[in-house]
Amino acid sequence: MRRKSFEGMECAIAWAIDQLGDPWTLLLLRTAFLGVRRFQDFVDRTGVTPTTLTRRLAMLQDLDLLRARRVDARPPRDEYELTEKGREVLPVLLALGAWGARWGFPRGAPLELADPRTGALLEAVVVDRHTGAPLRAGAVSLRPGPGASRALKAALKAPLLLGAERRVR
Amino acid sequence: MRRKSFEGMECAIAWAIDQLGDPWTLLLLRTAFLGVRRFQDFVDRTGVTPTTLTRRLAMLQDLDLLRARRVDARPPRDEYELTEKGREVLPVLLALGAWGARWGFPRGAPLELADPRTGALLEAVVVDRHTGAPLRAGAVSLRPGPGASRALKAALKAPLLLGAERRVR
Repeated sequence: MRRKSFEGMECAIAWAIDQLGDPWTLLLLRTAFLGVRRFQDFVDRTGVTPTTLTRRLAMLQDLDLLRARRVDARPPRDEYELTEKGREVLPVLLALGAWGARWGFPRGAPLELADPRTGALLEAVVVDRHTGAPLRAGAVSLRPGPGASRALKAALKAPLLLGAERRVR
Repeated sequence: MRRKSFEGMECAIAWAIDQLGDPWTLLLLRTAFLGVRRFQDFVDRTGVTPTTLTRRLAMLQDLDLLRARRVDARPPRDEYELTEKGREVLPVLLALGAWGARWGFPRGAPLELADPRTGALLEAVVVDRHTGAPLRAGAVSLRPGPGASRALKAALKAPLLLGAERRVR
């Protein structure tokens, strides 16, 4: 079952959802970040069936998120490693994890992030690169960007506040 | 088709993927952030079929991501608005959008983020709340957190570097 693609939407979020917004894709990428590289280790760590895994690994390679590397000739065996594009998905997973920790584990998350050099606790938060201000609903607007079509510019004449509260009537 | 749940995994990322990691869930939440509240408007904006939308709206309400509000009595009509839990998904969508802009729109994204008060361009980046350091592959470790089970603590004795590069053999 291949769903309708969101690619025509002129929206980077929709484009990213199209590439990543699938539970197995996200879970296999997460598992690759944990250092898992071999087919059987993906099966053991995630419970994915071999059939699904074969299909997903092909898809992840087509999307240039993982690449295969032949590590043994006889019998032939590949390992799967993150590409640069795949490695840059980590912030998305960390944002998911921060949300999941807050809403799914009110008594404390099973895992926490740490600085590998200092051991200091790290907490993932999405901010504006320039000012460091947290980006949350009601504090961010959308407007046409440098790649907007004429139609998008016409449709979005004023900046659109994301997550505006309902006005009281 | 309901996939195997990742909920037993003792991982906030897996928990979040379980709740959000579905293309229609993410796309409908994105669309709700744009201010869409009515059934037909969701259909018009996303191309979702009414059958799928009905199912997804029920699921999103079960997960407490959206809530329905009766706005007209005759004929009865509901609007769907983001809950607090749903509103806090915005940073995840912005992290997805930043990745999508970088990898999907090399000549410039169709939309950009702006500060609703000042109009300044905003760029979403995932950083450590305490130091502001960007969190990327190779710069973040995982270790057992306050909610870790004994089994997880035993399995993860040393912090695990996320996205470690392959060691040359």
